[in-house]
Amino acid sequence: MDKVLVGVDVGGTTVKLGVFPWEGPCMDVSEIPTPHTGRQEDLWDAVAEGIRARLAFLHIDGHRLAAVGIAVPGPVDADGFVPWLVNIGIGACYPAKEIEERLRVPAVSANDANAAALGEAVYGAGRGHRNIAMLTLGTGVGGGIIIDGKIVSGAHGCGAEIGHFVVNPDEEEACNCGNHGCLEQYASATGMVRSVKRFLASEDTPSVLRKLPPEQISSRSIADAAKAEDPIALKAFDVYGKYLGLGISHLVLTTDPELIIIGGGVSNAGQILIDTVDPYVDRYTHIAKSRAEIVLATLGNDAGVSGCAAMAKQLFGVRT
Amino acid sequence: MDKVLVGVDVGGTTVKLGVFPWEGPCMDVSEIPTPHTGRQEDLWDAVAEGIRARLAFLHIDGHRLAAVGIAVPGPVDADGFVPWLVNIGIGACYPAKEIEERLRVPAVSANDANAAALGEAVYGAGRGHRNIAMLTLGTGVGGGIIIDGKIVSGAHGCGAEIGHFVVNPDEEEACNCGNHGCLEQYASATGMVRSVKRFLASEDTPSVLRKLPPEQISSRSIADAAKAEDPIALKAFDVYGKYLGLGISHLVLTTDPELIIIGGGVSNAGQILIDTVDPYVDRYTHIAKSRAEIVLATLGNDAGVSGCAAMAKQLFGVRT
Repeated sequence: MDKVLVGVDVGGTTVKLGVFPWEGPCMDVSEIPTPHTGRQEDLWDAVAEGIRARLAFLHIDGHRLAAVGIAVPGPVDADGFVPWLVNIGIGACYPAKEIEERLRVPAVSANDANAAALGEAVYGAGRGHRNIAMLTLGTGVGGGIIIDGKIVSGAHGCGAEIGHFVVNPDEEEACNCGNHGCLEQYASATGMVRSVKRFLASEDTPSVLRKLPPEQISSRSIADAAKAEDPIALKAFDVYGKYLGLGISHLVLTTDPELIIIGGGVSNAGQILIDTVDPYVDRYTHIAKSRAEIVLATLGNDAGVSGCAAMAKQLFGVRT
Repeated sequence: MDKVLVGVDVGGTTVKLGVFPWEGPCMDVSEIPTPHTGRQEDLWDAVAEGIRARLAFLHIDGHRLAAVGIAVPGPVDADGFVPWLVNIGIGACYPAKEIEERLRVPAVSANDANAAALGEAVYGAGRGHRNIAMLTLGTGVGGGIIIDGKIVSGAHGCGAEIGHFVVNPDEEEACNCGNHGCLEQYASATGMVRSVKRFLASEDTPSVLRKLPPEQISSRSIADAAKAEDPIALKAFDVYGKYLGLGISHLVLTTDPELIIIGGGVSNAGQILIDTVDPYVDRYTHIAKSRAEIVLATLGNDAGVSGCAAMAKQLFGVRT
């Protein structure tokens, strides 16, 4: 019987499980609730049991499971060590080792944003490319870099912390990380909303966004307004594109990828986002005469489990 | 007989040749003048003949030559294609292929700054580390990134164009590349001198640098003055450290290396340079709780040929 791979994406609310054939696209995605008992054993037990139960549900014999990849929302070093998982409320752990002990198959772990980048590289917008970078533009800004088909996780698990490039050292407001002027402060959905609110407060330019209750001003409503050429929305998009372009330029001038893949909630804005950021990337990468194409992600929330399956396959290939 | 490796570093004035045993440090470095006939055949003929002659001089039989690495001052893509070599006055070429045809041994090419980074990683300050980044702070600012012991040259040969990170989008003066606000404008020797001249012109603070004829204001004399706590020199060092720290922070937050190696003329300033830049790197990499140590390069001008020998060894290992 053909081997299968399982990708696990541990989030604050749910743990996503994806089952993948050895070749070809994802065959099944399911979710279990993330245990919040403060005991990490409960998390690993739930993941292992969740995998066993899902394979049984799919009539896949446990012996067909080749390897498991597991993504977590925190830094993962070269030895698979995770110092903390703030959103899950647990401390130091070795996620892959825990899964290996419970399921008796090889396992490998990675940071969730890095796994998403590998997922898009292997199964999504980056198929056929070995060198990509991905930015996930959501409530925050995450990122991942893939070189020669592999995640660049870095010596201390801080590879591709793209959201915390300082792009404006003069910023006075603090980022969630405590620093000032991080890319995340401008290129997240939150950053776009803040930018619109600043413009609405500081000038009288007419805007459909003035008529919305403040809680309905979101990256989606701003994108819709920008497509209708609303002047405030266009201004906010321009600021957004400037900082995002500056952040992307640093990626181009370090690892020079073939593709830059943009995912996350803000990427639902679509082509207008690419059209806004593209000229800024050109400007800030002047010396790189030919540079990466910027494209939209295609896997949505399945990027993480997809990257985990890709890691698991790499691992299994090495071990056998 | 043991195999030997040859590293070739093509510069605007001279071509450096380094002969390396299979294991252990460089055994011989020599130079030949760079031909400037505008005919690339003349360059490759001179390199091939230079290698043959040097091996003969060292009483090393040509059959002991395992492979050649060749560094050039221009971008080199994944296929070894070089679109232009401005300083040498020649256009599109495949340097490794030219050397292979002439010497009948495997050859491999890389950008010179990338080769220098690999040289420091394998033979110099980075020995024992697989993941480093290097900045060469001279008339300009060059760089190289090594991941898992290999050069990150990028999809278009623009990997590690660190000198052209835009660190100040509001800069009005143009960089040599035509862009505005590149790291090179601040973190080169030229940038440090310009910064001192600006301070001397705009304020009356006493400084030993005022007594020097303008052409004697150099990164060396500024470093000497800073070590003697000259206030203008210290201010210029601080500006230098701020921008260099911002540039290094982008490297830390992309590839998260074990070590950052600083070379080039400005690095002769020594510990005061590290002490100035270190707090800025800390500030701009706030989220990366543990980060790369910053150290001085040790190979000087031999870094390039050393990296070429390391590449040649990697290549020979793959082919046999």
